[in-house]
Amino acid sequence: MAGERMDGLVAVLDAVRAGHGVTQAQLARQLGLGRTVVAQRVGRLESAGLVVQDGLAPSNGGRAPRLLRLRDSAGLVAGIDIGATGMAVGLADLAGRVLVQAREPADVAAGPDVVLGRVEELVADLLGRLADPPPLWGLGVGVPGPVEFATSRPVAPPIMPGWDGHPIRERLSARFGAPVWVDNDVNVLALGELRTNPAAAEAADLLYLKIGTGIGAGLVSGGRVHRGVDGCAGDVGHVAVTDADTVVCRCGNTGCLEAVAGGDALARYGRQLAESGDSPVLAGVLAARGSVSVADVTTAADRGDPAAHGLLARAGRLVGATLATLVSFYNPGLVVLGGGVVHAGDHVLAAIRESVYRRSLPLATRTLRIELSMLGDAAGLAGAVHLALDNLFEPSCLPLWLSDGSPSGRPEVASATARRRAI
Amino acid sequence: MAGERMDGLVAVLDAVRAGHGVTQAQLARQLGLGRTVVAQRVGRLESAGLVVQDGLAPSNGGRAPRLLRLRDSAGLVAGIDIGATGMAVGLADLAGRVLVQAREPADVAAGPDVVLGRVEELVADLLGRLADPPPLWGLGVGVPGPVEFATSRPVAPPIMPGWDGHPIRERLSARFGAPVWVDNDVNVLALGELRTNPAAAEAADLLYLKIGTGIGAGLVSGGRVHRGVDGCAGDVGHVAVTDADTVVCRCGNTGCLEAVAGGDALARYGRQLAESGDSPVLAGVLAARGSVSVADVTTAADRGDPAAHGLLARAGRLVGATLATLVSFYNPGLVVLGGGVVHAGDHVLAAIRESVYRRSLPLATRTLRIELSMLGDAAGLAGAVHLALDNLFEPSCLPLWLSDGSPSGRPEVASATARRRAI
Repeated sequence: MAGERMDGLVAVLDAVRAGHGVTQAQLARQLGLGRTVVAQRVGRLESAGLVVQDGLAPSNGGRAPRLLRLRDSAGLVAGIDIGATGMAVGLADLAGRVLVQAREPADVAAGPDVVLGRVEELVADLLGRLADPPPLWGLGVGVPGPVEFATSRPVAPPIMPGWDGHPIRERLSARFGAPVWVDNDVNVLALGELRTNPAAAEAADLLYLKIGTGIGAGLVSGGRVHRGVDGCAGDVGHVAVTDADTVVCRCGNTGCLEAVAGGDALARYGRQLAESGDSPVLAGVLAARGSVSVADVTTAADRGDPAAHGLLARAGRLVGATLATLVSFYNPGLVVLGGGVVHAGDHVLAAIRESVYRRSLPLATRTLRIELSMLGDAAGLAGAVHLALDNLFEPSCLPLWLSDGSPSGRPEVASATARRRAI
Repeated sequence: MAGERMDGLVAVLDAVRAGHGVTQAQLARQLGLGRTVVAQRVGRLESAGLVVQDGLAPSNGGRAPRLLRLRDSAGLVAGIDIGATGMAVGLADLAGRVLVQAREPADVAAGPDVVLGRVEELVADLLGRLADPPPLWGLGVGVPGPVEFATSRPVAPPIMPGWDGHPIRERLSARFGAPVWVDNDVNVLALGELRTNPAAAEAADLLYLKIGTGIGAGLVSGGRVHRGVDGCAGDVGHVAVTDADTVVCRCGNTGCLEAVAGGDALARYGRQLAESGDSPVLAGVLAARGSVSVADVTTAADRGDPAAHGLLARAGRLVGATLATLVSFYNPGLVVLGGGVVHAGDHVLAAIRESVYRRSLPLATRTLRIELSMLGDAAGLAGAVHLALDNLFEPSCLPLWLSDGSPSGRPEVASATARRRAI
């Protein structure tokens, strides 16, 4: 590969990926390249198995020209979505279509050896379920904590004991001989929405807010994930909320959004409503089971319990007050709400919308839509798949594809790519 | 121009702009274009007067190849920085060097006819001060209010009576026969820092916070200005602050950041300190002049007046609390503070830094720098100049350059460009 002229290859490959069938003549016109150059580049991509001639374009009198397409089946990527209490692993083709997947409970607190060991088994199992699988060309991983994107290592993740600085990329790359990219789960969710939800793709400036045990945001600016200089953009669980509470957050501060509106807070407040008798429904739950969960609070609200509804509405207002600041600051076209909050649905959504529309700059909400995620869990897997695909088709990764028809797992190359994208 | 093959032109022009002297052979290698194509494209740019052969590169044995450079003097751009109480107008070459400028008081509330009339006079005067000026190829304008970037029109700007929806682009474009781009003044300041402050260019993710009578932010994501879908990203003057005040803001809400920490608020609180006698220095000012300004508060604090210092520190803490949320959310590498606050210097800066470092996620402040703007007023003019240059060198603007060697003022072309960039 050393010294080979790669120039123009990326442009040709991108144009083939974007088009639904394109001819060499169209490529030459579109890219301003000579026909000889285009033919040489297409030949290179064909010999690497990336591009295939498939079907004929309408003739202009002479022989009908052949259409070029990305060979979606040339390779596989793995998407790995690791959550606090479960994981999903899937294999997808180069168009991002998930071919096989597995989803199961998992405890991220069990540490990287246990969790990544199981990930490796699942990927191997899924590969075994495909008849004659193409090579695995890349892996995208989402984890529930902050990640330094350039190195793919978790950085002081609060709910991932044992993962701080763990070389996830190096481990999986050595096991599967393919490059690996790791990102925060909320960025991965935002990417999944961006690539598979037409409304998100159209908005271009997107804010994904995950409200579960933790609260975090994923940002998309002009169609690109905005990760920030340390890769921790969107970490809004610990911003101070105006309705200050004396509850001490796990971060050590007080009045954190997560500590008054996150899942644990809702369960704690729900138990208080049960104990005080303010919520007869929750009191019944506590008597029967000895505990109250967020799901119980939602169920009680669904049954018309005013105290439970009030609790969810208050959480929605607190989230909405912070979101109003973020909306004024970021001016997204779409806010997607995901995480456990989706199950609380309208009780929370209405309160969030009310706060945002009341407190944001009117211009910033003129065209704003605030929606619950319709993709649910699928967004995480889709995002992990596209995390791998987006990086694989970056120019700096092309040497991987073309060296021997499949990307090597050399971590230094993958890491150089990641660094460039993080800048 | 119709049907002319423009492809590759943009790449060649960009490479010539970026390089400090480059040969045709280097261009061919770098861009993966055939030598014939490069020669044709260079010829086209030379005939348009955009590129010039200037100097010789070291020979490799044969005839020394000629170096290509952007002809900085081929055209002019005008930068127009309209503030609440003053304006600056300058003419720059295609490298962004300001050649002549004028700065004078102005009242934006006098309305667009008065202000833009004076802008037109100043641009004409400055053109007259240049011996044999090249044609004016574009104008960039910053105004102190929200702007719909795609149309270059102000949208309900609170301190610009008469400007709502005013066709600034169409007016100036008709007068000068060149395309016009208009943006919010804080975005323009952020762009000015990005293009002329090496620390800002290096950070790539930048947050410019202007604290004056109004408070607003300019965002840069990965080296591009993030404007949001309605062009109003960064409008944080009216976010609710935790230290809620009963003061009613001009927006109608209470507890707005601007209403408790903006310039008017500081002057009002300063007067209260004078009247109550808590600040002997400010009491003296009030007795002598009948009023207290922000500058008086700063001067009193500089002289060691504890009440005045406390007032500025409190404003800094309130700004810092909001900034902490924005830093956790956006994870910038650099926060630049500009506006009148620069004059209050260390009294405010220390309090802002303290709040941010105390309340932001530790990872988000690991490499964060918070600095006062060193460029001051110059950033606005530089930003307006680069607003025009950045857009002029966009691919969609090239037909303007090449049609007859200078861009026409056809607003529909400029507007199409702006729309594309806003997406």
